[in-house]
Amino acid sequence: MSNYLHNYLSGEWQAQADAANLLRDPVTGEHIASTGGRATGLEAGFEFARSKGAAALQAMTYGERAAMLDQVLKVLQANRDAYYDISLANSGTTKADSAVDIEGGCFTLGYYAKLGASLGDARTLLDGTPAIYSKDKLFQAQHILTPARGVALFINAFNFPSWGLWEKAAPALLSGVPVIVKPATVTAWLTHRMVADVIAAGILPAGALSIVCGSSAGLLDQLRPFDVLSFTGSADTAVAIRSHDAVARHSVRTNIEADSLNCSMLGPDAVPGSASFDAYVNELVREMSTKSGQRCTATRRALVPSSVYGEVAEAVSARLAQIKVGNPRNEEVRMGSLVSREQYDNVQAGIRKLASEAKTLYDGSSQPLVDADPAVAACVSPTLFGVQDADQAALVHDHEVFGPVSTLLGYRDTAHALELAHRGLGSLVASAFSEDAAWLATTAQALAASHGRVHTVTPEVAKTQTGHGNVMPGSIHGGPGRAGGGEELGGLRALAFYHRRSAIQGSAQTLENLSATAKAWTV
Amino acid sequence: MSNYLHNYLSGEWQAQADAANLLRDPVTGEHIASTGGRATGLEAGFEFARSKGAAALQAMTYGERAAMLDQVLKVLQANRDAYYDISLANSGTTKADSAVDIEGGCFTLGYYAKLGASLGDARTLLDGTPAIYSKDKLFQAQHILTPARGVALFINAFNFPSWGLWEKAAPALLSGVPVIVKPATVTAWLTHRMVADVIAAGILPAGALSIVCGSSAGLLDQLRPFDVLSFTGSADTAVAIRSHDAVARHSVRTNIEADSLNCSMLGPDAVPGSASFDAYVNELVREMSTKSGQRCTATRRALVPSSVYGEVAEAVSARLAQIKVGNPRNEEVRMGSLVSREQYDNVQAGIRKLASEAKTLYDGSSQPLVDADPAVAACVSPTLFGVQDADQAALVHDHEVFGPVSTLLGYRDTAHALELAHRGLGSLVASAFSEDAAWLATTAQALAASHGRVHTVTPEVAKTQTGHGNVMPGSIHGGPGRAGGGEELGGLRALAFYHRRSAIQGSAQTLENLSATAKAWTV
Repeated sequence: MSNYLHNYLSGEWQAQADAANLLRDPVTGEHIASTGGRATGLEAGFEFARSKGAAALQAMTYGERAAMLDQVLKVLQANRDAYYDISLANSGTTKADSAVDIEGGCFTLGYYAKLGASLGDARTLLDGTPAIYSKDKLFQAQHILTPARGVALFINAFNFPSWGLWEKAAPALLSGVPVIVKPATVTAWLTHRMVADVIAAGILPAGALSIVCGSSAGLLDQLRPFDVLSFTGSADTAVAIRSHDAVARHSVRTNIEADSLNCSMLGPDAVPGSASFDAYVNELVREMSTKSGQRCTATRRALVPSSVYGEVAEAVSARLAQIKVGNPRNEEVRMGSLVSREQYDNVQAGIRKLASEAKTLYDGSSQPLVDADPAVAACVSPTLFGVQDADQAALVHDHEVFGPVSTLLGYRDTAHALELAHRGLGSLVASAFSEDAAWLATTAQALAASHGRVHTVTPEVAKTQTGHGNVMPGSIHGGPGRAGGGEELGGLRALAFYHRRSAIQGSAQTLENLSATAKAWTV
Repeated sequence: MSNYLHNYLSGEWQAQADAANLLRDPVTGEHIASTGGRATGLEAGFEFARSKGAAALQAMTYGERAAMLDQVLKVLQANRDAYYDISLANSGTTKADSAVDIEGGCFTLGYYAKLGASLGDARTLLDGTPAIYSKDKLFQAQHILTPARGVALFINAFNFPSWGLWEKAAPALLSGVPVIVKPATVTAWLTHRMVADVIAAGILPAGALSIVCGSSAGLLDQLRPFDVLSFTGSADTAVAIRSHDAVARHSVRTNIEADSLNCSMLGPDAVPGSASFDAYVNELVREMSTKSGQRCTATRRALVPSSVYGEVAEAVSARLAQIKVGNPRNEEVRMGSLVSREQYDNVQAGIRKLASEAKTLYDGSSQPLVDADPAVAACVSPTLFGVQDADQAALVHDHEVFGPVSTLLGYRDTAHALELAHRGLGSLVASAFSEDAAWLATTAQALAASHGRVHTVTPEVAKTQTGHGNVMPGSIHGGPGRAGGGEELGGLRALAFYHRRSAIQGSAQTLENLSATAKAWTV
């Protein structure tokens, strides 16, 4: 078979080139699609997006662009079954795990369609209220946001071919900024199919959405002043991106989400068998197993009071032992495979690394895979490591194993737990479970400086809470330091990245004229 | 004489090293001060600031830090005369031009002292209102801002040794983030003296304010995750800073203000002798002459309707001819010198470059300097270039001549004027003068996407307007693309750079506990 993933640039599907990269079913190893190598027509494609795409999008109002997002959503919903098939074949995920990616993308798109509708017929956003600069109050300043005069280039990660596209494209398109997406090659098929469906539906103006599959060579060279770049991937690639000449020379605004050693904390008040204890154990197992641990937000470090370390280890291990791993086509299987055999090798190497300093509390690898050949499939069973005296562990704070792997760390008191949390040097999310709302509030404040999101759970919200690892479009997503320093989503906050903020100074009359056609940007 | 500018790190004045750099009076060439070369004790100094400085500052409330800024202001006011003497000797500026730097710094400091007082006894800021995530409304999200867990390193430009320090330090210190400033060596004396006065007054906690003079070698290597970096200087240095390994690897949040080809536009309704015409001519002359054109915001490109090109050229030239240039110690002198003979050479080279494509409309160099030796003094007389058919000019949009030099460009219609404005590829400020408030509003919106600030002037605000080139602390300062992509000031907006934004998710009770001690961050 051959599904060749053509590039779409300058409003046209590009001719097939060599098949430089093969996409495989990570469970069976079967070759299921291919992409070309270095893309041609990049310069023209970027320029087409900047001129045609941006002009058409920015001629529309926020409300019109929001309605367009709603139409995109309807196209995706109409083709939903095909996306689950592709996800199964290319990402090796169970239906529930595919849903995290597919429904997560749709949910975010729908969220921005609704939020954008509230901005109505404006083409400019007002940031704050006028500042008065003269004694007679006639000379004033009003800050406004106007859409960026460039393209948004997305270089996306392999774990979320759907959500990773739409969580970025929804705010970009709503802002009036054309999108060029470069999905990670290994799982590019789903992104490609979604883009193809949306293009075929004729909803978006020409140049508003383009896709480049296969090699990323030459992409960054296209960036110019006013373009923006959003990257999700490894910290090493992030360094290369920031240092790239076009990025550095043209002040290309860059959002980066990189490595993250997220932690989850069980409060010092924990009693085995209590509601908080059980909620914590549930959440940790869910974090380790969802998408086989291939979420940037997954809990890598589980911080628990030393006094209940043994009980947590036991409870989590018992739950992990119930998880069947293997071919997601078998309905018994709860955890499918990683995205590729290469990732399988990376995770195995990571497990060996962590094993050098941590005790193995649970090792699922002795259980046989269901309907999958261990010599071929990228299936990895869960592993729970543990270091009861957390001061004896160092690697766990620095080395992200991107699979169903977590390490339990015992802490002495809250100060010790916070010190351990900060050793991640900046992460996407920390969570904390306790029955003490006051302790959670002060702990959340302390965690906030090194985490983009702090997720707290008391028993009364244990059932309704949205999950440690789930990214809600109303909350910002990103983290400082090692996590890349980026910030996505967060409701209308997301629009700031795709807009230019300017202070407009002038007479009260001039500013009234300006504000008459604008809408307030409030978060 | 010798004023040796010692470094202040780890709460101590560092021992004198070699005198590696000499500071000179740019009018007389006299050696007036010196600095050491590569600084020692940097690693310890940065760590001291991060641990002692940040801890002490962040233990205080916003209100307490605001009161501290007010005390700093009082110290500066008490030593004001010394600052004017230093500015005269080291920057070669007239009293009026020294005031732009000295009073500008004090004004900004006072502004943030007052603004910070409104934040009262909070230590955390609330960003927006809670988002509801569960049907029973019990699970919610609230965004907060917490002070950065690091230091703020400022690498500053030579043209504003006072304002350049305080416009950055005021929001940083108010945020609770310790400051390490590296002033440009050539005019470092004033920054150094101000820092020394503030240190001697014992107002700031140890580690809150440090200074490194002389070489910047090794400074960037000290940066870690959570530190922030603010740079004002050339676009070439900006590229090196962005690409620096520590900056790229640790996601060091960076604010850059670089080159800027600011423009000022006279509206198509201009009639010679009208109020708008006269206001435009006044402003252009002020922009060219203030601080001898050594402001990042100065008008480099003057866009006027082709129809009145000749009249503008004549009116501006007549005004420029009245400006006496020379030794600022002579009270007749309105324009002193550039900061150094090196800058003099740069500006002369820039003038030769622009002369290759533009007509010289006014050349002040034939007038003798007052009390200054042209072979020694860094004094440059104003030059007005012009290209009546602006499509014939290219260099003027790319080459910033950092002196009393502007180029008049004739435009055909508004669309042409906007196209010319955008050719700056991102600037700090554009201004527009007209009697038509509706035209100004739509023009301001169009200019906003490539300018950090748009300054519009109608006749009723011609006398009260704050000036094209003046940076008001209530308006953001920075611009996209070539201008570096940064954003400073803008009232409380400035605090965002020195804070980490986090989404705190939890029960209504948990978030109420958190909000009880916080204050809303509103702009």
